[in-house]
Amino acid sequence: MNDTVKYVLEESRMPKAWYNLQADLPTPLPPVLHPGTHQPVGPDDLAPLFPMELILQEVSTEREIDIPEPVRDVYRQWRPAPLYRARRLEKLLQTPARIYYKYEGVSPAGSHKPNTAVPQAFYNQQAGVKKLVTETGAGQWGSSLAFAGALFGIDVQVFMVRVSYDQKPYRRALMETYGARCIASPSTETQSGRGILAQRPDHPGSLGIAISEAVEVAAGRDDTKYALGSVLNHVLLHQTVIGQEALLQLEMADDYPDVIVGCTGGGSNFAGIAFPFIGAQLRGGRKVDVIAVEPAACPSLTRGPYAYDFGDTAHLTPLTKMHTLGSTFTPPGFHAGGLRYHGMAPMVSHLKELGLITAVAHHQTKCFDAGVMFARAEGILPAPEANHAVKGAIDEAIRCREEGTSRAILFNLCGHGHFDMQAYIDYFGGKLQDLEYDEGELAMALAGLPSVGAPA
Amino acid sequence: MNDTVKYVLEESRMPKAWYNLQADLPTPLPPVLHPGTHQPVGPDDLAPLFPMELILQEVSTEREIDIPEPVRDVYRQWRPAPLYRARRLEKLLQTPARIYYKYEGVSPAGSHKPNTAVPQAFYNQQAGVKKLVTETGAGQWGSSLAFAGALFGIDVQVFMVRVSYDQKPYRRALMETYGARCIASPSTETQSGRGILAQRPDHPGSLGIAISEAVEVAAGRDDTKYALGSVLNHVLLHQTVIGQEALLQLEMADDYPDVIVGCTGGGSNFAGIAFPFIGAQLRGGRKVDVIAVEPAACPSLTRGPYAYDFGDTAHLTPLTKMHTLGSTFTPPGFHAGGLRYHGMAPMVSHLKELGLITAVAHHQTKCFDAGVMFARAEGILPAPEANHAVKGAIDEAIRCREEGTSRAILFNLCGHGHFDMQAYIDYFGGKLQDLEYDEGELAMALAGLPSVGAPA
Repeated sequence: MNDTVKYVLEESRMPKAWYNLQADLPTPLPPVLHPGTHQPVGPDDLAPLFPMELILQEVSTEREIDIPEPVRDVYRQWRPAPLYRARRLEKLLQTPARIYYKYEGVSPAGSHKPNTAVPQAFYNQQAGVKKLVTETGAGQWGSSLAFAGALFGIDVQVFMVRVSYDQKPYRRALMETYGARCIASPSTETQSGRGILAQRPDHPGSLGIAISEAVEVAAGRDDTKYALGSVLNHVLLHQTVIGQEALLQLEMADDYPDVIVGCTGGGSNFAGIAFPFIGAQLRGGRKVDVIAVEPAACPSLTRGPYAYDFGDTAHLTPLTKMHTLGSTFTPPGFHAGGLRYHGMAPMVSHLKELGLITAVAHHQTKCFDAGVMFARAEGILPAPEANHAVKGAIDEAIRCREEGTSRAILFNLCGHGHFDMQAYIDYFGGKLQDLEYDEGELAMALAGLPSVGAPA
Repeated sequence: MNDTVKYVLEESRMPKAWYNLQADLPTPLPPVLHPGTHQPVGPDDLAPLFPMELILQEVSTEREIDIPEPVRDVYRQWRPAPLYRARRLEKLLQTPARIYYKYEGVSPAGSHKPNTAVPQAFYNQQAGVKKLVTETGAGQWGSSLAFAGALFGIDVQVFMVRVSYDQKPYRRALMETYGARCIASPSTETQSGRGILAQRPDHPGSLGIAISEAVEVAAGRDDTKYALGSVLNHVLLHQTVIGQEALLQLEMADDYPDVIVGCTGGGSNFAGIAFPFIGAQLRGGRKVDVIAVEPAACPSLTRGPYAYDFGDTAHLTPLTKMHTLGSTFTPPGFHAGGLRYHGMAPMVSHLKELGLITAVAHHQTKCFDAGVMFARAEGILPAPEANHAVKGAIDEAIRCREEGTSRAILFNLCGHGHFDMQAYIDYFGGKLQDLEYDEGELAMALAGLPSVGAPA
């Protein structure tokens, strides 16, 4: 029997529509509220930030939303992405489990992020937008939007969390090679940034602050819009190509997942792999255990209350109901920078409330143990974020061994770690530590949650 | 018309045999000579360094050599590799040329090198070898052998040229993540290394020195063999999967290349894309212009004489006839570390003598100009080595525009540049310079070429 089992989907079977889980939810999402009035926002409230097509996707309850042909054309460069059976890892673990992984590191930017960067750039171009402004943590998202901007002729400006800006010059260089401008955040270019710097000139930055800066720049100019790499419904929607492809590929394998595992920061790669399967279950299909794996140092799903909160630190965004650690919470500097966000996608948070998913939190050293084991068995070196999913999948496979059950485990390998080698150097050098967040800071951030009455 | 045109070969059409150009050469290769006796070497002379299967491949004149199923099994992880039509680049250049590129950056190590690392690890495992020792420059080869070693359960030890070892800690970390041991060369672990360090303790190293160290370690132990990432016939042979796949993919496109472009350091990726087409021409097929693009700072094909020389600095290897700058020549430290070798594959050198290929040399800034243009148009960021091929292809496309002819240009994009971002940082920072080799040093290295009579 072969050790490499790859399921390649023909290009003609690449999804023609994104799958919208909002169509199948048993109860709808709580409304998004205006930060001032606490009344539900309408499309016009969001128009300064996003083109109308994306706003309509944000609130749509249509089950299928057509993927425009120019977007599919770019997807085609690396999609359909391969699905693998991890047979060498199974042997190593001596597990009766069948482990499958969808590999999104084949995109030019090395992660799943172009799945949404491309349609966002496309819809903005169609709307006549000349410039997109965004934030990035570790840089996966910023480099993906830079890539998409280059293809659609849109200027891209990225506020990069300062600590990452300093630590990851290579991600920055990738953005600049694609022609984007990359600025350390907090910066002196915005009121939000200057405010933070006035209080603390050496502030290391956070995603919440970088979002504030990007939103401020975008809101101030007609030809400029904002783009977000996770959290929002339309972003999660675009990622569903991952799970839709996996569904077809597992059909080729004559299999169906008993368990789906994804890592969660803002929630988009997790949603991408899981939503099509959760939707099938909600429409009467097979039940699947869906597990979100988050960093123990930023545990929004396992520790944060389900509450209305801001998406950013300066409180420029609308209020959304989500699992949150509070918009002023600054997580410690662990290596999975893409998972360092105080909140969780409203859709993912809602699913947790409905009992349709579960969540676990892991510290980073155990995740790197899992990632190195995976790299040596399967040959692909995962990003630190993806190591959380690997850890979750390996734990399930070991459970199968202990229980003597053969379950099918599907996980999302959302990106390669070629830009994250410092983390591996630290790991092998014994310098990687399990970081704890400050309990006092969390309590303060949670105490600062906006007081919002029952939604209308 | 779509901008992304990708030719995906079905897995069932992945080559089942490597193509051996030696079967179709109009005149055979000059023999390899023993360094002491200057007599042709036999298989037994090479047995301390390589397993017999690889030695037989080195001298075989069979046209097709079966790829063992365990090797095809690993190839399947990323092969067949995609062939793209570079339509966005064509538009940008306003050229009537049809530009195709084969993308080898999809392998887990990010380059074409696993195409030979995998069979080398396999044949050594079959021969009971426990440990492989090799050299690496920029690290593409070392990380590829580390990857293959992990899959086949063979220990891998890599002598990495010191200047790269210091400059590229991330490549080193990739090797270590795969479980390999990586040592800066010259090292104190070998007689060759200690000899060099005694003369110059801060020696920056060279591929020739690293080869000496690896050969010395391998020759000294029965369970240990040596592995080379380029130059040798069997290495070039393994790379022919690239061109064989491209041939089938161009059939799908209903096209055939008028021009083939590849970058040349040791010659393996160039051979991989070009040999199957050259072979077809030699068997009566269509004529194709084949262009080798080499760095102007290490111009073995365009500047080096065709002469017998050593493959390494300490003169432990046999003598092969090749274009060479002399085994003691140390090229300046330009960024395409994979192209910094004093010699050129005997097969590629022979083709140049036969007039079957031509060669051009370019300085690195022009190559980076081309690479950045390519990245912004096509979305893929090439390795510095691959930028040489991009430059060659763009020059041909511009010539087509000027001449008003529509030719089909095929080039090999042999790897991505995600581990080479410092080079791009230097480029954008204006710090990338066109380096010149030292004419005096070249003259001295050439004066030191061994004096070999006409071969038997």
